[in-house]
Amino acid sequence: MTLASERIWTAALVVIGDEILSGRTEDRNIAQVARWLQVQGIRLMEVRVVPDIEARIVEAVNALRTAHDYLFTTGGIGPTHDDITVDAVAAALGRPVVVHPEARRILEDYYASRGGLNEARLRMARVPDGAELIPNRMSGAPGIKIGNVHVMAGVPHIAAQMLDALTGTLEGGARLLTETVGCWVAESEVADILREVEKAHEDCQIGSYPFFREGRVGANFVIRSTDAEDLRSCVDTLCDALGTAGYDFTPGGI
Amino acid sequence: MTLASERIWTAALVVIGDEILSGRTEDRNIAQVARWLQVQGIRLMEVRVVPDIEARIVEAVNALRTAHDYLFTTGGIGPTHDDITVDAVAAALGRPVVVHPEARRILEDYYASRGGLNEARLRMARVPDGAELIPNRMSGAPGIKIGNVHVMAGVPHIAAQMLDALTGTLEGGARLLTETVGCWVAESEVADILREVEKAHEDCQIGSYPFFREGRVGANFVIRSTDAEDLRSCVDTLCDALGTAGYDFTPGGI
Repeated sequence: MTLASERIWTAALVVIGDEILSGRTEDRNIAQVARWLQVQGIRLMEVRVVPDIEARIVEAVNALRTAHDYLFTTGGIGPTHDDITVDAVAAALGRPVVVHPEARRILEDYYASRGGLNEARLRMARVPDGAELIPNRMSGAPGIKIGNVHVMAGVPHIAAQMLDALTGTLEGGARLLTETVGCWVAESEVADILREVEKAHEDCQIGSYPFFREGRVGANFVIRSTDAEDLRSCVDTLCDALGTAGYDFTPGGI
Repeated sequence: MTLASERIWTAALVVIGDEILSGRTEDRNIAQVARWLQVQGIRLMEVRVVPDIEARIVEAVNALRTAHDYLFTTGGIGPTHDDITVDAVAAALGRPVVVHPEARRILEDYYASRGGLNEARLRMARVPDGAELIPNRMSGAPGIKIGNVHVMAGVPHIAAQMLDALTGTLEGGARLLTETVGCWVAESEVADILREVEKAHEDCQIGSYPFFREGRVGANFVIRSTDAEDLRSCVDTLCDALGTAGYDFTPGGI
């Protein structure tokens, strides 16, 4: 059974970039950060997508870093004029921006065979004073960790490298476990069943996610709990109730 | 030329749903709402993704509906116990929840051949008092418009139907125009060019979006302006500068 006193670790994500808000680029980082956090036993509680405007980034960073155990950002750490995340995070934390000697060395090595380190590339060695680096084997330019703020790249596979480097380094709680049960039914036909089963299992939440496929309506019911036994019991109760009411269901989801 | 006094219309989006924050479902609504708003001449300035917790939804709705001309929400308007958006928006606006007679009639018609209107389905006729409906030909259940708040479905193709129904009904300003120029170059090699060209065209912004493809680095430069002439001039200047510096570029992007 889950102890009521068990600590829940929470995180928030700030996605920085006009390209997401214009619809030009479809974000891939929300889902990948969310899934990675689940495995670390940390709950993603809020995401904000903000434009490349320093005041907006500062506002989001300060609202969320104080409200959660961890804050992550993606985007805006490249070499061009529109990459202002480091300056914004430094401003949010009230720290100066400095060139990190280790980041400079990494970039010198990386660009040795690629035309050398110019002024634009050196921008990627700038960090808020006191920051540590998050390694990035993909493109040299590291991410940045300062306090509970983790500044990562916007390009999804580079962000993935940085998450990989952070794996196991953050303290988390019990991992949220999930099971899915699928059913070819309009969710509105089984709303009472879902509500009653959830009510009978207070350490579980049930989410209902309808879909239209192959010309038919269906829904996946996702049961979440930090306790494996409670989760199993809730799934069993739900399947029994669906079966008794005459519905075919698919363990694992459709 | 763009007049400095020209009004810019802004919007925000609240994406409601544990399934996005858990990483189970990859959001598709941010990009589709963003692209639709562009066409309406409205700028999407912020997105917040919040969990299925009433207090968190209320907080986001109230922060963003007062800061922007329009607010949109997606998710949480179905028939099941985890669909709490209507209650949260009503609470945010300080209004009671009522059954909308027209919504009830729409649902009665829709479900006449589908087992009839039960209590769960009737939940989808509940609106904050004073709301209008946003039609939804796909699944019967309408969206809701109240003040500057537009409450839409989470299922992306139903949200798309609701956006379609809203097309042309919202006042907007000049549409933000974009042109893209692609280049097989590390963006760090041309950072100076980008900054200088942007500085010389004060009504344009240039975003730089690097990528790795086919084992090579490249970048797309996206130029944005509400003025077609300024945009053209900025694109021409950028292409000239890239060409003069010896880079091949691809109008339209790579």
